[in-house]
Amino acid sequence: MGVEVEREKAGIPKKTIYRLSLYHRCLSKLTENGIKTVSSSALAKAAGVKASQLRRDISHVGQFGTRGLGYQVEELRLVIREALGREHLQPVILVGAGNLGSALLRYGGFQKEGFEVVAAFDAVPEAVVKREIGVPVLGTDKMDQFISQNAVKLAILCVPGENAQEVANELVLSGVQGILNFSPTVLQVPDSVTVNNVDLALELENVSFFIGRESEPESEEPPLEEL
Amino acid sequence: MGVEVEREKAGIPKKTIYRLSLYHRCLSKLTENGIKTVSSSALAKAAGVKASQLRRDISHVGQFGTRGLGYQVEELRLVIREALGREHLQPVILVGAGNLGSALLRYGGFQKEGFEVVAAFDAVPEAVVKREIGVPVLGTDKMDQFISQNAVKLAILCVPGENAQEVANELVLSGVQGILNFSPTVLQVPDSVTVNNVDLALELENVSFFIGRESEPESEEPPLEEL
Repeated sequence: MGVEVEREKAGIPKKTIYRLSLYHRCLSKLTENGIKTVSSSALAKAAGVKASQLRRDISHVGQFGTRGLGYQVEELRLVIREALGREHLQPVILVGAGNLGSALLRYGGFQKEGFEVVAAFDAVPEAVVKREIGVPVLGTDKMDQFISQNAVKLAILCVPGENAQEVANELVLSGVQGILNFSPTVLQVPDSVTVNNVDLALELENVSFFIGRESEPESEEPPLEEL
Repeated sequence: MGVEVEREKAGIPKKTIYRLSLYHRCLSKLTENGIKTVSSSALAKAAGVKASQLRRDISHVGQFGTRGLGYQVEELRLVIREALGREHLQPVILVGAGNLGSALLRYGGFQKEGFEVVAAFDAVPEAVVKREIGVPVLGTDKMDQFISQNAVKLAILCVPGENAQEVANELVLSGVQGILNFSPTVLQVPDSVTVNNVDLALELENVSFFIGRESEPESEEPPLEEL
């Protein structure tokens, strides 16, 4: 999202991590289709980035590729997978199983990428249980204990904006270190906690802004401007 | 999202537009609470950005604020609203009313921010109608005609990844100029079309990556690295 402070941890910039995830997905498709090698320009096009960008991103995980021959698909996929830590994916809880929260559980996209949503929490769990969302639904008063007992580090937050900070505080105190935040609120958390905001209305507003405007040459803000 | 080419249109960088939307939301809350003035540091904190960033962003829409007194809340809100074109919000269609698509319609966040989803399209509209999603559901064969007749420029795309490019092509041919893409596919579109990707699994993977890693000092990639 455009509104976050860009962090760099483990020596790889946050934006590079996004793109490595994307390359991993593209390489998985190539593997499924039995393709053995791919040029940097073809892989870059599939991922929607420039080839020079791709080569630089990949240099963060090692030296690969042969001029004129491209990358070994499976080798590169495994190295990126290792770098992303996808061998060790975390259990996830979802907090706030309203319309959006329930839907996220039903849509199955997280599971498809290897995440296991182990439980959902809601202030009124009885109302949610009826919707058959496929995971245990517990009251938010059980959250702290569950997080400790199951060593949960990752939470998807879908509560209303006005409750989001309070719930985030509880999550952090209980030991959660990463929050995917769908609530339309900017969360204040300690530096040790990672928050990614997915603000759906803001994204739509952003697309809307650019409709029907004259396209100008792409240009970057000077580095100082960047968040 | 971190994986997009940053565009600059209408003289305001894309990331600045995100943040202006965010400031607008914060200022609306202040107005609701009867607050008349706000310092740049307080507004920046509410939006989760640095005060220097906020001041620079706001300079894109004009000269505001008095040293020591801060900003006039309502004046600034109206100017940002005007700059964002929120007086003239567009009708939106949603394509692919499966689990995620139906949920996005039900969750109400878009409507709350002033967007009107005027219709949904699905390959099997009969199946969707039963879910009572609150808008007319039509077959995708009716999409082209509907877009032309209603001058729709904005679409939310929630079809499976393997169909996303094909549907995007149809949308663009029919006159859509902005797509909020939830399908896990990188869309190839003409430069005149804006695509924002909301890739939920990728966001979760990104949060997951940063869990339990040593936090390093924030640093930026050199400008060349930026997408």
